[in-house]
Amino acid sequence: MRPYEIIHAKRDGRAIAAPDLRALVDGFTRGDVPDYQMAAFCMAVFFRGMDDAEVGALTDAMLRSGDVLDLSDVPGAKVDKHSTGGVGDKVSLALAPLAAACGVKVPMISGRGLGHTGGTLDKLEAIPGFRTDLTVDRFRALVREVGACLVGQTERLAPADRRLYALRDVTATVESIPLIAASIMSKKLAEGIDALVLDVKVGSGAFMKTPADARALARTLVAIGRGMGKRVSALLTDMSQPLGRAVGNALEVVETVELLRGGGPPDLRDVTVELTAEMLVLGGAAPDGAAARTAVLAAIADGRGLAKLEEIVRAQGGDPRALQDPDRLPRAPRTYDVGAAAGGFVREIDAEALGLAAVALGAGRARVEDRVDSAVGLVVHKRLGDPVGRGEPLCTVHEGDRSEPRARVAARVEAAFRIGAAGVAPPQLVVERLDRER
Amino acid sequence: MRPYEIIHAKRDGRAIAAPDLRALVDGFTRGDVPDYQMAAFCMAVFFRGMDDAEVGALTDAMLRSGDVLDLSDVPGAKVDKHSTGGVGDKVSLALAPLAAACGVKVPMISGRGLGHTGGTLDKLEAIPGFRTDLTVDRFRALVREVGACLVGQTERLAPADRRLYALRDVTATVESIPLIAASIMSKKLAEGIDALVLDVKVGSGAFMKTPADARALARTLVAIGRGMGKRVSALLTDMSQPLGRAVGNALEVVETVELLRGGGPPDLRDVTVELTAEMLVLGGAAPDGAAARTAVLAAIADGRGLAKLEEIVRAQGGDPRALQDPDRLPRAPRTYDVGAAAGGFVREIDAEALGLAAVALGAGRARVEDRVDSAVGLVVHKRLGDPVGRGEPLCTVHEGDRSEPRARVAARVEAAFRIGAAGVAPPQLVVERLDRER
Repeated sequence: MRPYEIIHAKRDGRAIAAPDLRALVDGFTRGDVPDYQMAAFCMAVFFRGMDDAEVGALTDAMLRSGDVLDLSDVPGAKVDKHSTGGVGDKVSLALAPLAAACGVKVPMISGRGLGHTGGTLDKLEAIPGFRTDLTVDRFRALVREVGACLVGQTERLAPADRRLYALRDVTATVESIPLIAASIMSKKLAEGIDALVLDVKVGSGAFMKTPADARALARTLVAIGRGMGKRVSALLTDMSQPLGRAVGNALEVVETVELLRGGGPPDLRDVTVELTAEMLVLGGAAPDGAAARTAVLAAIADGRGLAKLEEIVRAQGGDPRALQDPDRLPRAPRTYDVGAAAGGFVREIDAEALGLAAVALGAGRARVEDRVDSAVGLVVHKRLGDPVGRGEPLCTVHEGDRSEPRARVAARVEAAFRIGAAGVAPPQLVVERLDRER
Repeated sequence: MRPYEIIHAKRDGRAIAAPDLRALVDGFTRGDVPDYQMAAFCMAVFFRGMDDAEVGALTDAMLRSGDVLDLSDVPGAKVDKHSTGGVGDKVSLALAPLAAACGVKVPMISGRGLGHTGGTLDKLEAIPGFRTDLTVDRFRALVREVGACLVGQTERLAPADRRLYALRDVTATVESIPLIAASIMSKKLAEGIDALVLDVKVGSGAFMKTPADARALARTLVAIGRGMGKRVSALLTDMSQPLGRAVGNALEVVETVELLRGGGPPDLRDVTVELTAEMLVLGGAAPDGAAARTAVLAAIADGRGLAKLEEIVRAQGGDPRALQDPDRLPRAPRTYDVGAAAGGFVREIDAEALGLAAVALGAGRARVEDRVDSAVGLVVHKRLGDPVGRGEPLCTVHEGDRSEPRARVAARVEAAFRIGAAGVAPPQLVVERLDRER
């Protein structure tokens, strides 16, 4: 079919055959299929969706638009984790070293902050000297020798996805489950992994606000991965409030180190342990979930996780002393507290609004060319269900020289908390699992 | 709202305010809003539709993207008729002179053949010397002096529509009632008319295949026109078979002259009389439909309609002798008959397929740059409900040197007729009216 016929067929709700999807993606990547046809196609997909075979074919076409890493010469199971994005989600920073310390190889290609969500690359780059732009050879060597390596996407990894994402971003076609799923999986499957754990965030700080949407995305992601012969699990985890307390790049590095020292917020620790354990099971490094959790907790307790993170930081050019001494990390020149306007219980948190407040402080980007300020961010003191007195601090704001004025940031933060007379139960951390048992 | 926000809002089913639609159309016409955003917007409109206020604002913005004729200095009511397109639809050729002969002014800007449908300009240009590319001043003068003038769209008439239509044509967003309606009305309302009769075709040879779709389009068209203070009626007329017997440009001119001489196929005559009569009523040249029909029939009977057509042809540079003597019109070098494969009754006619057969003969264009062959086409002998013997001619094909081979044309024609054992009633010509009484 010609591109016009493909758009027409999708518009009318028909499934597109794999060779046609491949031709469309290849033509688009080469520049033969114009942006306006691809934009119309994406909008038709937004309304009509895609079946598993179509999403699989779309993913495969995008994956093959660039280089696909072959890590078969690296011994051991190569396992990665992908999060759909949230606020305060620093899980990868602890999970990668913990999984490596427990015996799986972690070739992790991460992203930058997007919208209200943070990005692993931005967090890592808060560590002085840390490089995420390694060559493929160096990446391969570090996965083999260190057991984990965290880098950014190269120009040659799934270029069709990069082009398509840029187009979707300006045509209001980002929020389409098949397109999101193909975008995620085309990049992840280009990493040369054997298995993948998906952390599908759900709630006010996630792209998927409802369990139904998150479940649909998780199912699609799992179907794509399994269709390509990978071992894949998905966990739906709570994002109805920031994960942990720190939101902002250097602040999140500090909290990661706390976690790897056996402390840190319990929700962050529990989610990190669950996801890392799932990696160990998929990678064959633990016989079951219980054994895997025990292994991960042991790697925290005996310091192997922190030692591995130091090793990763050193291998990627960073200063490992910054992990021991937070004064070596970027630090905001000023802090101030935002207090509650009324007393009661925290009933709802708009985590997306808190993420946007962090962006307004400089922790993220309003435009793709903006530079992030590693030092700034929020520390969230009150969580869902917590009692709060009038005037009691909700957040401490770490302010930088490019931050939005205090009054506006404070208004954003205050508006993000809904405080009422009755308490609420804290949310369940792992909302649902689509894992190896199913 | 920025273009992104407009797309997003429409995608989510929200109505777009008039100033935002105007900014979008203006930006698109200037080239500031890229094609890919407009394509995504059109696809969102395809799925979400538009309310009357939105379609009105979109029409107004497209209308104002170019010149709007002011014919207020031409005395009398200026009334036009627009058909949504069909096969064998030569109504305008007789209607314009008849309406002018009965006292309304007809400033008619017509189109060329599109897809399987014919176009008034192509039919007129079958008359040797006939010019449809007059200046605006000449157009105005002929409307005043002759009472009717039939020309093509200038570059300066609704340029936003021309640009948008070209984009919709390659992004599978043509078939959207609000976009179709805005396209039609932006051009018609730029003509400086007081009133408009809409002939919304419905059936196998129309763009709208069902009465429900045709009714929806008719209602939208009427709402736009009335919203802009015009008197507007719409008639849904049958296109479940070609109108009249001739399909092809010179052949249709001959049939028009037969009609204006008091002969011709009854369906063509009746539809032409109904539409012309409606113009007279809207233009105040007749007190009601019955009086208007009588006036039109009188103009046929006493030859004033044919005399007016000769006057129009002469005024626009054509040879009026071609109306009296068909040998002066282009004539196909060869003809052949296509017979019925089986006997019975004509139960269905795929008029679109017959239209495409005429295009394959050279009567229309496969690509916009193609030249039409004025001489070629079909004469349809059998109509819905007619008995037909095995081998009896269904159509006579007028073949030219650029026509598709006989076997293929014959197969198209034969496949367009469904012949069965039981008879069917002929279709109602005027399916429904949305006129002045409602």
